[in-house]
Amino acid sequence: MADAVTPTPLLKDELDIVIPTIRNLDFLEMWRPFFQQYHLIIVQDGDPAKTIKVPEGFDYELYNRNDINRILGPKASCISFKDSACRCFGYLVSKKKYVFTIDDDCFKINALEQHIKNLLCPSTPFFFNTLYDPYRGGADFVRGYPFSLREGVPTAVSHGLWLNIPDYDAPTQLVKPLERNTRYVDAVMTIPKGTLFPMCGMNLAFNRELIGPAMYFGLMGDGQPIGRYDDMWAGWCTKGLPYIYHSKASNPFVNLKKEYKGIYWQEELIPFFQSVALPKDCNTVQKCYIELSKQVRAKLSKVDDYFVKLADAMVTWIEAWDELNPSSADLSNGSSK
Amino acid sequence: MADAVTPTPLLKDELDIVIPTIRNLDFLEMWRPFFQQYHLIIVQDGDPAKTIKVPEGFDYELYNRNDINRILGPKASCISFKDSACRCFGYLVSKKKYVFTIDDDCFKINALEQHIKNLLCPSTPFFFNTLYDPYRGGADFVRGYPFSLREGVPTAVSHGLWLNIPDYDAPTQLVKPLERNTRYVDAVMTIPKGTLFPMCGMNLAFNRELIGPAMYFGLMGDGQPIGRYDDMWAGWCTKGLPYIYHSKASNPFVNLKKEYKGIYWQEELIPFFQSVALPKDCNTVQKCYIELSKQVRAKLSKVDDYFVKLADAMVTWIEAWDELNPSSADLSNGSSK
Repeated sequence: MADAVTPTPLLKDELDIVIPTIRNLDFLEMWRPFFQQYHLIIVQDGDPAKTIKVPEGFDYELYNRNDINRILGPKASCISFKDSACRCFGYLVSKKKYVFTIDDDCFKINALEQHIKNLLCPSTPFFFNTLYDPYRGGADFVRGYPFSLREGVPTAVSHGLWLNIPDYDAPTQLVKPLERNTRYVDAVMTIPKGTLFPMCGMNLAFNRELIGPAMYFGLMGDGQPIGRYDDMWAGWCTKGLPYIYHSKASNPFVNLKKEYKGIYWQEELIPFFQSVALPKDCNTVQKCYIELSKQVRAKLSKVDDYFVKLADAMVTWIEAWDELNPSSADLSNGSSK
Repeated sequence: MADAVTPTPLLKDELDIVIPTIRNLDFLEMWRPFFQQYHLIIVQDGDPAKTIKVPEGFDYELYNRNDINRILGPKASCISFKDSACRCFGYLVSKKKYVFTIDDDCFKINALEQHIKNLLCPSTPFFFNTLYDPYRGGADFVRGYPFSLREGVPTAVSHGLWLNIPDYDAPTQLVKPLERNTRYVDAVMTIPKGTLFPMCGMNLAFNRELIGPAMYFGLMGDGQPIGRYDDMWAGWCTKGLPYIYHSKASNPFVNLKKEYKGIYWQEELIPFFQSVALPKDCNTVQKCYIELSKQVRAKLSKVDDYFVKLADAMVTWIEAWDELNPSSADLSNGSSK
């Protein structure tokens, strides 16, 4: 029997908020009541000479490209430039168990509280519950749900959605420039095991301890043949309720230029990800990710040379992760000794 | 790009409504505006000497146990008695493409219209769309959804939910006697391929042409060691919106007696169904179902002798189906000749 989960607000030393930006962070005023109690990691994209203003009263650290180059040295090559994929540098330097990341153009609804509830509440990826989230007050597992699966598993990712401007690809944006999402679906659900989904980095929280190293956002933007596919590289066991209000529609023509290779590449990437299998001795996220990089190189390099670069960057990312997170690196080198 | 699907009301010769009952059908008054245009197949359970009153103005046929025995002869053994699983006799005698089935204690909301929309609208079982139903007005496929999968596949089953009294098993009913479902989730979603779910026969519609022979509700009730597991024997690609208002909570003590074997059997049934594989030459629903019956006999008879009886009944059901639906039987015997 599932009891209603009471929201335990996470403490400051348990959660960081990661924000990629190229502009002054006036939007933070809207979020002050929810964000001020946490530490912000701001990843400044673009020209490092520009000064980003942060409203008073927030506790933050800010990294621009010069900082990233200084801290990572040659390994900085794995962090994208001129693309919001640079946010994953913030995942690397965070030392907290949970991370919440949000775009700098998202307004109005307290998504964070729901993300925290989701992350602290189990997921049910092995069997679908027709009343959706069984742990919510007033709901439960329905007749026929196996009792042995009712404990659930720890939640790795909490995936929020967007009111107002939906996250469409460039062709859909072009065809439906005026479409807005006004429907708030009052449900949290687990995406079942084995089911792929398009993860959007705009409004996302995850358990960094559990799957941090797999949250690499790839090589996008400046000098790369592709953009806007950074967030598609991760996540399975995800939950849906936290909505944010997405106010800025990006330019569909610019988006099409960024996406056009992705749009046809993804037709080959999906079967790859659907069939990928990892050997049993991959018992840490790092080992799984390195193995995945090998398979990316072996099977996707025929799609485009870009995937050779990306496979290299995936390895560099794990090296950077282990360098900045030595305790988890020990673990990945075999804590069973 | 998905256009909003305009609801095409199904014609009378396309849909039948199947209702299992032991009482006068006064509840039909509530549904008159929605049901009167369709043909009803009423399956009378229990004592055939009892007269079931149907309100005036409905077009119906009614079958009691004597009728079932007369029509099916010895094959009548596959139809449950004193259990609402008897409803599947109605699926057998229907000649329509679509079937909607509903319990005789469900009130108030026009679920049928939504079921029809769902059945006429494709499903998307191969990839999860984070805005849920992409074919709904105001929604679409989000960025990152493969274009090659946007056509979807025909919907086989439309699974409704329940407001008011949720469909809990006996232990949950006993622990939460007062819990009511008051939350209407405004979303239709596809249960992904490979994901099992607990199907409830209380408020269900399906494409009889596509999967009719697989909609067998098993051997339950009188003379059987198990009840209330009839509806759990089917369904994958299912959609959620149509809610009905479930007014009568069944007695949890009676339910526990019916369910108690099912509750521990299901722990072995789920892994069986999760791992079941059908050979490629099973190219009709009938052939798949016969093959499944063989695997039930081979792998589940060790759980209980009941599964030997059930495997026999599954074969008898298909024989009865083919006898009453000769054109689909020709198909199952190899239409490729």
